[in-house]
Amino acid sequence: MGKVYVLGHRNPDTDSITSAIVYAHLKRELGMDAEAVSLGIVQNETAFALEKFGFDAPRLIETASPDVKNVILVDHNEKQQSVKDIDKVQVIEVIDHHRIANFETGDPLYFRAEPVGCTATILNKLFKENGVDIPSNIAGLMLSAIISDTLLFKSPTCTAQDISAAKELEVIAGVDAQEYGLAMLKAGADLSDKTLEDLLSLDAKEFGMGGFKVEIAQINAVEVSDIMDRQTELEELIYRNIAEKGLDLFFFVVTDILNNDSVALALGNQAKKAEQAFGVPFVNNVGLLKGVVSRKKQVVPVLTEALSE
Amino acid sequence: MGKVYVLGHRNPDTDSITSAIVYAHLKRELGMDAEAVSLGIVQNETAFALEKFGFDAPRLIETASPDVKNVILVDHNEKQQSVKDIDKVQVIEVIDHHRIANFETGDPLYFRAEPVGCTATILNKLFKENGVDIPSNIAGLMLSAIISDTLLFKSPTCTAQDISAAKELEVIAGVDAQEYGLAMLKAGADLSDKTLEDLLSLDAKEFGMGGFKVEIAQINAVEVSDIMDRQTELEELIYRNIAEKGLDLFFFVVTDILNNDSVALALGNQAKKAEQAFGVPFVNNVGLLKGVVSRKKQVVPVLTEALSE
Repeated sequence: MGKVYVLGHRNPDTDSITSAIVYAHLKRELGMDAEAVSLGIVQNETAFALEKFGFDAPRLIETASPDVKNVILVDHNEKQQSVKDIDKVQVIEVIDHHRIANFETGDPLYFRAEPVGCTATILNKLFKENGVDIPSNIAGLMLSAIISDTLLFKSPTCTAQDISAAKELEVIAGVDAQEYGLAMLKAGADLSDKTLEDLLSLDAKEFGMGGFKVEIAQINAVEVSDIMDRQTELEELIYRNIAEKGLDLFFFVVTDILNNDSVALALGNQAKKAEQAFGVPFVNNVGLLKGVVSRKKQVVPVLTEALSE
Repeated sequence: MGKVYVLGHRNPDTDSITSAIVYAHLKRELGMDAEAVSLGIVQNETAFALEKFGFDAPRLIETASPDVKNVILVDHNEKQQSVKDIDKVQVIEVIDHHRIANFETGDPLYFRAEPVGCTATILNKLFKENGVDIPSNIAGLMLSAIISDTLLFKSPTCTAQDISAAKELEVIAGVDAQEYGLAMLKAGADLSDKTLEDLLSLDAKEFGMGGFKVEIAQINAVEVSDIMDRQTELEELIYRNIAEKGLDLFFFVVTDILNNDSVALALGNQAKKAEQAFGVPFVNNVGLLKGVVSRKKQVVPVLTEALSE
């Protein structure tokens, strides 16, 4: 079938980047000509993990065609989160842990989604199911992804399966998950080299919700106020984003990785729905979301429900 | 989470009925209060398999709510092929081997689709992955499903995985796959107790294709001419179907299970596209599809392409 690209979502996080590398490795072991590629530059947290375990960042691509006819999606399935010419290539596999939406094929395919905290936890099963050993450096990437997606096992998205996979991978990788994990998360929360534009786009995802177009950007921080002190400038940039993309809601979430709370900034014609969704006041467009750290489990479902009424 | 219904698609075939029974069994073994239910009465072929291995047909349901909050879909994922109040319940799992379309969730779920010939082949893996033994009578149902979906391993949808699963299940079930399988297929192709309305609805599925509404009904037969001799009456019924459901195309496929060819009758405002799709003339609305036995692999993709241009 020729070369196959393995790719995570736009604005890739650590799970998207490492799962592309890891699954491409597994597919090559199984005889496929697979190459991990990425749809965006790696973030500080991911760079920290790649360097630790001796990997280069995957090659950046703009489009999949005409280079390849077939792609494998990891860590996403929604079309608008994928490579922009996704309709011109065939999706032959999906490995994901998100909701399923805006995904359609003409032919049957291998689609493996599980309600776990991280794609790497599913990949850990796939290595076993295929009888392929996990090399130490690959295990390190998988562990990094689980730590990243579960905020060191503290996110409500974290399942018993993620913890048990991480324990196995910790041994193979030969690192201490707590010590290494905190260093990695802190590297990711170091925003000193970032512009405000960066903060809004680093981990932004677009969703269709009840007919509305919603973008949700999330950023991890050690000092939330460093970011929120610049609310006026942020709002200006967000309004530009809303106008350019025709969004109904831009929801910017700043997550405190030490206290595990988030502060959210809601703008757009559907911004009022945020109060209703979370049951907290949004004062001057800003609301405090106690205990909220997971976009997937604590933000997307409640906003989807509020916008679908 | 209370009781969970496990259900196959409307107009259920042998795979849909038996996979609901089989997967409900596995989920009960794993501690879930799961009940197999069905969206339609069983066909002769399925009744033959159920009787052979000592099972009753699953209970017929009209709606899932308010009886249950959660359902598991087997052998389908497209909304219009599922229980009519699917939007009122939560889909917590999908085990399927078809294309993915018209399926959307608010939350992550367990979604396992593989490009194999039969749902039972995936279920065979799930028993192993969960360390649960397959009882002899359950293995018999799974073998029946594989034989049915692959037309005794002769359909192009049949993969090496289906054959290898069937070999394992044959031993556990203690039957000869060829001998039992031919008897089961012939029981299914016995249409003597069927009305023409039955033939059009027994295994009919609706699809969205390029904005058009398409219904594809398929029937297995030993003597194709027994059915096609009554084309005039069939057309009258089909036109009524088209009018009632607002279809753009009704595609009726009669498959010769001994010669592995099909004859198709195409009606509706998009009927002309059938010629283009299959590259054969449709004379008096009827075309001969040499070597075509699989709706999923040989009919749906080509019609989807022709209707999407």
